[in-house]
Amino acid sequence: MTISVAVSGASGYAGGEVLRLLTNHPNVSIGAITAHSNAGARLGDVAPHLHSLADRVLVETTVENLAGHDVVFLALPHGASAAIAAQLPPDTLVIDAGADHRLESAAAWEKFYGSAHAGTWPYGLPELPGARAALAGAKRIAVPGCYPTSAQLALVPGFAAGLLQPEDVVIIAASGTSGAGKAAKVNLIGAEVMGGMSPYGVGGFHRHTPEMEQGFSHAAGEPVTVSFTPTLAPMPRGILTTATAKVRPGVTAAALRDAWENAYAHEPFVKLLPEGRWPHTKAVQGSNYAQVQLALDEHVGRVIVTVAIDNLTKGTAGGAVQSMNIALGLSETAGLMIEGVAP
Amino acid sequence: MTISVAVSGASGYAGGEVLRLLTNHPNVSIGAITAHSNAGARLGDVAPHLHSLADRVLVETTVENLAGHDVVFLALPHGASAAIAAQLPPDTLVIDAGADHRLESAAAWEKFYGSAHAGTWPYGLPELPGARAALAGAKRIAVPGCYPTSAQLALVPGFAAGLLQPEDVVIIAASGTSGAGKAAKVNLIGAEVMGGMSPYGVGGFHRHTPEMEQGFSHAAGEPVTVSFTPTLAPMPRGILTTATAKVRPGVTAAALRDAWENAYAHEPFVKLLPEGRWPHTKAVQGSNYAQVQLALDEHVGRVIVTVAIDNLTKGTAGGAVQSMNIALGLSETAGLMIEGVAP
Amino acid sequence: MTISVAVSGASGYAGGEVLRLLTNHPNVSIGAITAHSNAGARLGDVAPHLHSLADRVLVETTVENLAGHDVVFLALPHGASAAIAAQLPPDTLVIDAGADHRLESAAAWEKFYGSAHAGTWPYGLPELPGARAALAGAKRIAVPGCYPTSAQLALVPGFAAGLLQPEDVVIIAASGTSGAGKAAKVNLIGAEVMGGMSPYGVGGFHRHTPEMEQGFSHAAGEPVTVSFTPTLAPMPRGILTTATAKVRPGVTAAALRDAWENAYAHEPFVKLLPEGRWPHTKAVQGSNYAQVQLALDEHVGRVIVTVAIDNLTKGTAGGAVQSMNIALGLSETAGLMIEGVAP
Amino acid sequence: MTISVAVSGASGYAGGEVLRLLTNHPNVSIGAITAHSNAGARLGDVAPHLHSLADRVLVETTVENLAGHDVVFLALPHGASAAIAAQLPPDTLVIDAGADHRLESAAAWEKFYGSAHAGTWPYGLPELPGARAALAGAKRIAVPGCYPTSAQLALVPGFAAGLLQPEDVVIIAASGTSGAGKAAKVNLIGAEVMGGMSPYGVGGFHRHTPEMEQGFSHAAGEPVTVSFTPTLAPMPRGILTTATAKVRPGVTAAALRDAWENAYAHEPFVKLLPEGRWPHTKAVQGSNYAQVQLALDEHVGRVIVTVAIDNLTKGTAGGAVQSMNIALGLSETAGLMIEGVAP
Repeated sequence: MTISVAVSGASGYAGGEVLRLLTNHPNVSIGAITAHSNAGARLGDVAPHLHSLADRVLVETTVENLAGHDVVFLALPHGASAAIAAQLPPDTLVIDAGADHRLESAAAWEKFYGSAHAGTWPYGLPELPGARAALAGAKRIAVPGCYPTSAQLALVPGFAAGLLQPEDVVIIAASGTSGAGKAAKVNLIGAEVMGGMSPYGVGGFHRHTPEMEQGFSHAAGEPVTVSFTPTLAPMPRGILTTATAKVRPGVTAAALRDAWENAYAHEPFVKLLPEGRWPHTKAVQGSNYAQVQLALDEHVGRVIVTVAIDNLTKGTAGGAVQSMNIALGLSETAGLMIEGVAP
Repeated sequence: MTISVAVSGASGYAGGEVLRLLTNHPNVSIGAITAHSNAGARLGDVAPHLHSLADRVLVETTVENLAGHDVVFLALPHGASAAIAAQLPPDTLVIDAGADHRLESAAAWEKFYGSAHAGTWPYGLPELPGARAALAGAKRIAVPGCYPTSAQLALVPGFAAGLLQPEDVVIIAASGTSGAGKAAKVNLIGAEVMGGMSPYGVGGFHRHTPEMEQGFSHAAGEPVTVSFTPTLAPMPRGILTTATAKVRPGVTAAALRDAWENAYAHEPFVKLLPEGRWPHTKAVQGSNYAQVQLALDEHVGRVIVTVAIDNLTKGTAGGAVQSMNIALGLSETAGLMIEGVAP
Repeated sequence: MTISVAVSGASGYAGGEVLRLLTNHPNVSIGAITAHSNAGARLGDVAPHLHSLADRVLVETTVENLAGHDVVFLALPHGASAAIAAQLPPDTLVIDAGADHRLESAAAWEKFYGSAHAGTWPYGLPELPGARAALAGAKRIAVPGCYPTSAQLALVPGFAAGLLQPEDVVIIAASGTSGAGKAAKVNLIGAEVMGGMSPYGVGGFHRHTPEMEQGFSHAAGEPVTVSFTPTLAPMPRGILTTATAKVRPGVTAAALRDAWENAYAHEPFVKLLPEGRWPHTKAVQGSNYAQVQLALDEHVGRVIVTVAIDNLTKGTAGGAVQSMNIALGLSETAGLMIEGVAP
Repeated sequence: MTISVAVSGASGYAGGEVLRLLTNHPNVSIGAITAHSNAGARLGDVAPHLHSLADRVLVETTVENLAGHDVVFLALPHGASAAIAAQLPPDTLVIDAGADHRLESAAAWEKFYGSAHAGTWPYGLPELPGARAALAGAKRIAVPGCYPTSAQLALVPGFAAGLLQPEDVVIIAASGTSGAGKAAKVNLIGAEVMGGMSPYGVGGFHRHTPEMEQGFSHAAGEPVTVSFTPTLAPMPRGILTTATAKVRPGVTAAALRDAWENAYAHEPFVKLLPEGRWPHTKAVQGSNYAQVQLALDEHVGRVIVTVAIDNLTKGTAGGAVQSMNIALGLSETAGLMIEGVAP
């Protein structure tokens, strides 16, 4: 079975990572590769690591160029994907790596994104309760944000098991600078970012906050609120998320460990590490894997859960391909690396 | 006025940084430079950045070698400094960069360090309320831990002003790997740490936790509890601390800003940044400066305060020299850089 | 067809990288995984990026544990592999990632390694003239050193085409610190290496020098001498080699370009980049690919050739797997990534 | 004695580094701080590490704003400084960190820079033979390029002593990415540069090549030609230069060592390291120091000299301040750090 796939936004990091994974996918034939300002360029000139596709020429991101494929990946600025998706045939599988179709609440969308809500698509985080059923056969998939992927992998098992209090969740995450996109900005140049860390979007303003709250609230069955602070770390890839929530009275370390262990025992891409081992973003570099570890701090009644993912793989393109595999009935792990590229 | 100073533990990062600062100090003559396993070596062979001292030979860390100076800096493993300090003359200014004399609570000491409590010395964080008075003329000074320095600079203004609730403080910090010391460990080698982040000491076990609680409790006038998680970031130096606490009912963003502004308006080394600017550890590299910024997240009723320091300078050696200056009645800024080495 | 493979030295970087590639190899079943000081440990504890093998236990590196497999990879300190290889059955394919069997000259071996010469095996750099014929069906393969791999890919096309003078070759290379091994040494810890560069083995003492000269001399049909200087760069992986040789009188830029273009036109893993593009080690991270570019400096009569490889992949484990594939008649690219993990 | 100093181009890396050093200079009062596109901004917003000048406002880079100071530093794109310098009073000390006045050969200037030659000023590399005499009392100083600074420190002692052959000089250098300037370019963003190395300007095209040849030719008393290849290393600051030249017949290792030892025995900022120690760019970070080491490779008859400097300090702003000190008769080391900021 060969699936024809088009990838838009291929000169950005998310689109490039989708292509990297698809070149290794046994069931995929890569069709149109599209871009906006880089249309007309050789892919080798804008993404020199994609050696097997180096001579492919980027075409304009238009409905005409994207239509006619079995699958279309959209890796576009938010706002752009909804307009294009609306014009693609309903039986084309459209996978949106952007934000447009993640949030169920139109109010939250409008508050954080400042534009009209485009509706909600099945959510491409297969490890959530019930997610695989919603993804199977789906023709539209919203890929989660990178931070919400790590945050939900961190805390959903506890909310789903009723072990956590819905208030006072604090999440602080460090992302590699590819998370800020392939953008020519002075504050992102190497001399500025190497060797230093800084926060941004502090005070509950980051757009991934409502997406986290949405996932936690579903799992908990009640509204959950989150204080989320992102930071930029001096590394190209990777997210290390530290998430902490107050446990309900009487919850023991063993009960916590059981809940996470059960949630991930059969997951191909998520692992609760053995006790005493801690996640490291290098261990998941280039891989679709997530490492999870937790500890109960009895002194303050909080569980602290740390998660390491690759923001471009499990956090974006890998999650997208994994969801595609489920939607199309392929092997869920096809095209995806388990092993990380380390050291 | 020339002060003779001895530095022990000079082959480690803290001792090396003390020496770097002292070579630039107008009132200091550097006497004995001591080490343990590196005794007998040229300083240039163990700390090749200290060019003006390259031909100095390290001598054994003994009471005999340290005595006879006006000031002795101890940069030794915890436990070692108390034994040596006890034998130094009472009129020698002894500044301990280790942990032995930081904690007031013998119970906390024994729980976190597992040994007998050595007593408490004046605490070398001049920006704390009342600290300068305690340091003036002191003959024994305990230098704060690097994380507690950043954490207290983050939240003490709020506790001192009565704006913060004493529970549910969450602090997550990222440190450069020099914070783990100059130790030949496989998990610290460059190939392992470059390009990745990982947590450690998760679950309330880090020894700096009770030191933070001590400082906050003094400022608040009531017991404060803290959930603290440290992480290792792929940079040589620097700490970025994100600290968040629940504000008391009715506390406004303006009231918060006023409290921090007032606390630091006249500090030579701590700055509340203008609104819209965020701390960056590169901006304080090699400098004794601390950058502070805060935001109120009204959605969850939390203030988030971020602080950037250099863990080896303001977080250790710089704080030590600043405290020495106060104790001896010198200019508080002597020997200390304000400007950071950036980019 | 399934090949059983044993990997020794699995807790080091070379052995770990062999395992990473083999988990993705369609024809391989991974048998014994051996180590020396780490025998008895879970692989997940010493190589946490190898998620699919995390629960495998390392056994002792002994002939007994390695025998009985179709293929044995040796990733051992030089000197150790010759002794073990001598005891393995002659029909087992033994692939030595160490240096023991690379040099043809016993005198060169003894001068640079200080021990008795163990003999020479077919040389696992398939891109050399005649190499594939020597590797097909081989039962013993010597994997080239990482620097010699890049250096020979840089200059052999010119020597083979008779375009270069055999004297005054200068090669200066920058390697990621994984090239120095997974060793607990203070000079390798992250705080020391991040943010800085340094040379080592300067003056013609590096053991890879005679290996380069051997390859160039074979290609040129006359003795070639090399000045080689390695440097350590602040990155985990990758080698950027700059090699320069004097061109023979009358050699034009076009003739140079033709020679390299012809040499690599049909190579699956080596590419002469289009003019105006330069190699970047990030573009080949985790991949078996080599990027090559050259320029003629007419002012001084030198060609400058730059090559980027991943020292652990094409430079060690990838070259080893590629050679295994050729020896066993498998697809040469099986188990090997073309695309690099970038950014 | 207080000198009033104006600094232009203050929002770039060179101008920022000049300011960092001047804040620590005992004889300097910082007057106008100028910029082009950032005129009107607070310095703290464009150079947040310059804490003591954070509230200073950048003014336009005009003759009016620069005139009236004792000293004017120009850190402008090449071409721009000549025009401004021509309008400044002849008794103002003008120090040009740009290229406009470095090359004596109008032909070389026009070939490499493509514009009309602006003339030659005294050359601000005090360690060159005769340089200090030319700088004393000078009113115009051309600051050397960063690569030429390191290259000349590497090889001039050998050329001056008549030990080196004038042909077949090969220089390969690795620079931190601040050397590429504070420019919003995609190829310079952190995600692209962290963890990788790449060459640029290969083939003798880099504009610093004729500047190196000029310095070597003066020292040798005959024309010297150079093959120079620069590379970008994943670090913010620092240059590691590896320079190699053929020695004249009969030159011994001892004669080489003597020549370099004699050249630098009394230099405050340049040190031939003890045998067995190698330069490291971290050891000179933020410092005006240069570390030098050499080795004779008798096998190929070449001396290999390695030099580490900070490209922004000794390579630009530090060399500029050192030259200012000499021109004005101040202490040569005023305002300059000897110790590096390491780790």
